[in-house]
Amino acid sequence: MSMPKGSNIGQFVVIEEGVKLGENVTIGHHTVILKDTVIGDNVTIGCNCVVGVRKSRNQNMRISNSSLDPLVIQANCKIGNHVSIYSGTTIAQDVFIADHASIRENVEVGPGTIIGRGAIIELNTKIGHDCTIQTLAYVTGDTTIEDHVFIGPCVSMSNDKYMGAREYTLKGPYIQEGAKIGNNATLLPGITIGSSAVVGAGSVVTKDVADFKTVVGSPAKDIRYLVSKEVSEHDTTT
Amino acid sequence: MSMPKGSNIGQFVVIEEGVKLGENVTIGHHTVILKDTVIGDNVTIGCNCVVGVRKSRNQNMRISNSSLDPLVIQANCKIGNHVSIYSGTTIAQDVFIADHASIRENVEVGPGTIIGRGAIIELNTKIGHDCTIQTLAYVTGDTTIEDHVFIGPCVSMSNDKYMGAREYTLKGPYIQEGAKIGNNATLLPGITIGSSAVVGAGSVVTKDVADFKTVVGSPAKDIRYLVSKEVSEHDTTT
Amino acid sequence: MSMPKGSNIGQFVVIEEGVKLGENVTIGHHTVILKDTVIGDNVTIGCNCVVGVRKSRNQNMRISNSSLDPLVIQANCKIGNHVSIYSGTTIAQDVFIADHASIRENVEVGPGTIIGRGAIIELNTKIGHDCTIQTLAYVTGDTTIEDHVFIGPCVSMSNDKYMGAREYTLKGPYIQEGAKIGNNATLLPGITIGSSAVVGAGSVVTKDVADFKTVVGSPAKDIRYLVSKEVSEHDTTT
Repeated sequence: MSMPKGSNIGQFVVIEEGVKLGENVTIGHHTVILKDTVIGDNVTIGCNCVVGVRKSRNQNMRISNSSLDPLVIQANCKIGNHVSIYSGTTIAQDVFIADHASIRENVEVGPGTIIGRGAIIELNTKIGHDCTIQTLAYVTGDTTIEDHVFIGPCVSMSNDKYMGAREYTLKGPYIQEGAKIGNNATLLPGITIGSSAVVGAGSVVTKDVADFKTVVGSPAKDIRYLVSKEVSEHDTTT
Repeated sequence: MSMPKGSNIGQFVVIEEGVKLGENVTIGHHTVILKDTVIGDNVTIGCNCVVGVRKSRNQNMRISNSSLDPLVIQANCKIGNHVSIYSGTTIAQDVFIADHASIRENVEVGPGTIIGRGAIIELNTKIGHDCTIQTLAYVTGDTTIEDHVFIGPCVSMSNDKYMGAREYTLKGPYIQEGAKIGNNATLLPGITIGSSAVVGAGSVVTKDVADFKTVVGSPAKDIRYLVSKEVSEHDTTT
Repeated sequence: MSMPKGSNIGQFVVIEEGVKLGENVTIGHHTVILKDTVIGDNVTIGCNCVVGVRKSRNQNMRISNSSLDPLVIQANCKIGNHVSIYSGTTIAQDVFIADHASIRENVEVGPGTIIGRGAIIELNTKIGHDCTIQTLAYVTGDTTIEDHVFIGPCVSMSNDKYMGAREYTLKGPYIQEGAKIGNNATLLPGITIGSSAVVGAGSVVTKDVADFKTVVGSPAKDIRYLVSKEVSEHDTTT
């Protein structure tokens, strides 16, 4: 293909047929842009990435019709090295995706959001604008994350209540506007984390968390309840 | 080498000497198949993989004689992008290995098993048939996982009781037929998780779990004991 | 460039301008050595690596002046496959860095240290000599790890007390000489783990841990206190 104005393409880059490249696009060495991928103006992609992956699967895995759509990466995105992104997904403008991250099919990532190093976003998931998904965080499939949410490093989610044992409509967490999840917290399937709620680091969240509440511990409890209980224990022992 | 019938080999693929390829094999762009690797019929490998790695090491690391054997990937396996697999390991037929996964030497993966995105399987480990090892799960070395086991996302295991402080025969968990481990659970070295046992999400398992038991919490306790205790606490406070 | 004595360079390797290679260096297929990187004698680098990355960023991310310095990898280091390392970082001699690991800018890794498979080391971090950072461990930015420290698999750290909500000087943990952190433990921002202290697997450490203490649980408490409490509970119930 003929390259648009301002392109900066590394060595051993593979660009398959049907790819649409905007202006001033930079692509690092050894990166692979698969069939029909759409890349906006001023996008930077690092080395050794694979973008526009069509879902491969075995008989026990789900597919999604939207995986037939192309991957769209909008203007001004910056993508690191060793990243994989699937077809059927849209990355809005000004998104930053760090090295070794992986994003599956039928995902929407809102403008200005940061996806951390080694973070993994599974299929059928919607992430709002100006979120931070930190390093090695795991966002399971069928998850909704609203705007301005902070997901700390190594946060873990799941979407399968019965761990494959029964038929079940898979449902990840629903994390509302401005919520903050501390590092290495565990979120169970289908729970809601309310607007501006805070989950402490290392907590295990087994129930919904109301708006503006802070929960900590395993299982996670309202921090105000825990403080009052600790005070009353002191009362009885002194 | 001359390619077998039905081969579909991407750009910039490296296939070293002694590699044996079956029929109808697909290999993505930039993938490296190292010396003597054996790949069965109808295997699909994505882009940017490195398979058949010979162990490199420093003076403090273990080796295994079987790492001198080739990597064998049997028929109908599907392997994603950015995957690394070592020599001395056997992947049985119909296995699915997702993007960014890594499997060390002297590992056996049974037929029909799924290894999730970014999951890491260490050396000297045996995984049965029809297991699911989910995204970012960490299976330590010297571990045995029987058939039909479910390992949730971000599950963590260890095999070194003294964390390098003493001489110790490394021993990972022994996870029996049909057990289910919830996401981000922590398993200590050498414990047994019994047949059809369930470990709750985020639990920290410090002792053996009997067949058919469900344990939750940090440290993990039998869920029936916890429920009865909660009831009796309510009795005394009301 | 002309290759030094004993070089062993794979296929499709990219070596950018200004790179300095020592003698007897081995570089695997498809690896990219970016501008000005300095590689010492007898260094081995695997396939599909990207080393010497210059920081890309969006407007919400920090930079560091030292990221203008080159990456320096000293003699006898062994680096696996799919590894990324940034400029402005120094890897001392005899370090082992396993597959899929990622190390950011302005990091110092001391001699003889092992960085595990998929481990991630963030910016502005100093790691001493003869440490073990195990598989999938996450070392946050602005962290100090002294010598002979053991960080177990999947350990998670954070450096941002307010999760992006306020201005705050980011500060990771300070882990002193010979401390040992069990697998999947969670460390909060700015805490000190004392010399030879031990943190149990799966623990959530919310406060400083004194030298030689062992803490376990969520939140982590001194193990001697927990044992005595358990004994006294038994006393009252029997």
